[in-house]
Amino acid sequence: MTDAMQVVLAKRPAGDVTADCFRQETVKLPAPRDGEILVRTRFLSLDPYMRPRMTEMRSYTPPFELEKPLTGGSVGEVVESNNPRFARGDAVIGMLNWATHTLHDGRGLRKIDPSIAPLSAHLGVLGMPSFTAWYGMKQICKPKAGETVFVSAATGAVGQVAGQLAKLAGARVVGCAGDDDKCAWAMREAGYDACFNHKTEREPGAALDRLCPQGIDADFENVGGRIFHAVFERLNNFGRVAFCGAISEYQDQKPMAGPPKMFTIVQRRLTIQGFIISDHISSMGDFISEVGGLLKAGKLKSRETVVEGLARAPEAFMGLLRGANFGKLVVKVG
Amino acid sequence: MTDAMQVVLAKRPAGDVTADCFRQETVKLPAPRDGEILVRTRFLSLDPYMRPRMTEMRSYTPPFELEKPLTGGSVGEVVESNNPRFARGDAVIGMLNWATHTLHDGRGLRKIDPSIAPLSAHLGVLGMPSFTAWYGMKQICKPKAGETVFVSAATGAVGQVAGQLAKLAGARVVGCAGDDDKCAWAMREAGYDACFNHKTEREPGAALDRLCPQGIDADFENVGGRIFHAVFERLNNFGRVAFCGAISEYQDQKPMAGPPKMFTIVQRRLTIQGFIISDHISSMGDFISEVGGLLKAGKLKSRETVVEGLARAPEAFMGLLRGANFGKLVVKVG
Repeated sequence: MTDAMQVVLAKRPAGDVTADCFRQETVKLPAPRDGEILVRTRFLSLDPYMRPRMTEMRSYTPPFELEKPLTGGSVGEVVESNNPRFARGDAVIGMLNWATHTLHDGRGLRKIDPSIAPLSAHLGVLGMPSFTAWYGMKQICKPKAGETVFVSAATGAVGQVAGQLAKLAGARVVGCAGDDDKCAWAMREAGYDACFNHKTEREPGAALDRLCPQGIDADFENVGGRIFHAVFERLNNFGRVAFCGAISEYQDQKPMAGPPKMFTIVQRRLTIQGFIISDHISSMGDFISEVGGLLKAGKLKSRETVVEGLARAPEAFMGLLRGANFGKLVVKVG
Repeated sequence: MTDAMQVVLAKRPAGDVTADCFRQETVKLPAPRDGEILVRTRFLSLDPYMRPRMTEMRSYTPPFELEKPLTGGSVGEVVESNNPRFARGDAVIGMLNWATHTLHDGRGLRKIDPSIAPLSAHLGVLGMPSFTAWYGMKQICKPKAGETVFVSAATGAVGQVAGQLAKLAGARVVGCAGDDDKCAWAMREAGYDACFNHKTEREPGAALDRLCPQGIDADFENVGGRIFHAVFERLNNFGRVAFCGAISEYQDQKPMAGPPKMFTIVQRRLTIQGFIISDHISSMGDFISEVGGLLKAGKLKSRETVVEGLARAPEAFMGLLRGANFGKLVVKVG
């Protein structure tokens, strides 16, 4: 028996996620049965997509269950194995519970080489967020040299990579972020041509007019809401939107209306495409080879926020939804 | 000198187009100069896209000019030629004035073979509307057998062809139209599996729930507004929208908001693509070969409304915006 600390969904949020949506508890896990492994979580990734999963809305992933531990992309270490694919000591990545330990049947877990990069990087710049940025930028935004690309969460785990990939393609890259330090980092480290603070700029449209005088050719959309509406209005003919998330809308109780004048989509021949990276796992090899190469060559910067201790995961997640993190947010567990 | 009757844009509409937006006048046209031809209009096509051109809004075609004749896709006959490409008696298609006669430099006009089909068909089932339907259905909606396709103006010049092409691809095809006769024709002649009257159905959502129990995989969108919102809500995972027009929004003075919950685009991995057929002229040959073949084989029905006399063009156009026409609307000139 192993004592595991875990965080369960105590109630579904109505509007903003609050601390009482979570409950911390200790459970006793039995030894792995045939085919099972016991994994100790080292790092838990916190990501905006978890917010829709806390509700019962129809979505691409089933809702989290009440009174069960939440789950998330994690890196862990196999501590006991009754599964021939895994040995004690293996570093693995995949969906684990928000818990110190998870009893797992191994499906969807894969081994990683911890010598390639720090463990947490496998959840960020070498992991799902970066893969998401790469796919959306390469397959949907397809920036050409000289075009203007907008990234609506410039320094987020996904956005920071999306912006750098657009820059490497020769585009002018403009973003926004929730504080001045993030904007400064975006321009200094990630090579954004411009980045505005959407909390202090009263009108995102005015900022876009100033910073994107040639309009916007491609938008990597993670935020939604009023920033997206302002971008939509300024998309050029044949503009592309890689729609990846809408964090600004996740906590709305009353669904926000879409941008006015949908006929703009026709007039400017826009393509707006939503995507979810788990549909594109077959491209993972191409991603690793391209982005791994850029990392090795020092051509890709990344920034992460590490929170210490699983007990702080709920608080960190609530902060993420307010934009309090800087770059990829991970929890160092145990 | 030739006396030409023409219809000019007397004022730009604010809201609904009214009769005083047009003025009929007679002008004397000089003989064609070097390179010019004089064309007598036989049929003038009236199409919804003309409505946005009456305003000054930024659009894909420049606005009509005040005090100048409106223009439109037309079939005409060359009555005098000073251009080696054209001979007296040639039947031509292209943009002509809303006029009995147009003095033209020949650019953008092409000769047609009047023995292939009735002249007016070159503006409809063998022309731009049908080409639009074909492109949007083939390149964007891409229906697979067993999928559900919705066509928002089921019997319009474009929609009637779009629906039949989806049916030929093996899809279940559902549409809506503005009166019961149109719905009956759509089902009886064009092979729609179902068609509802959006004027008598109080809630398009309820009609869609009833007629598209498996949701909607592809939407050929010509209407916009509340019908589009209801469709959007019911799109299945990986749904496609070929956004071709938004007639319900053209007369709005205050732009209508887009559908709520844009995050749906991500959740269901939707692709919403606007297109304008004039960008795809290079595909015209493929269209003619495929759709011409279907016509010859009797596999494509079409319906048109012919209005007699150019003087009635304004009234007919106002009716088009209200949905008063049935199928392709053309004016028989002179």
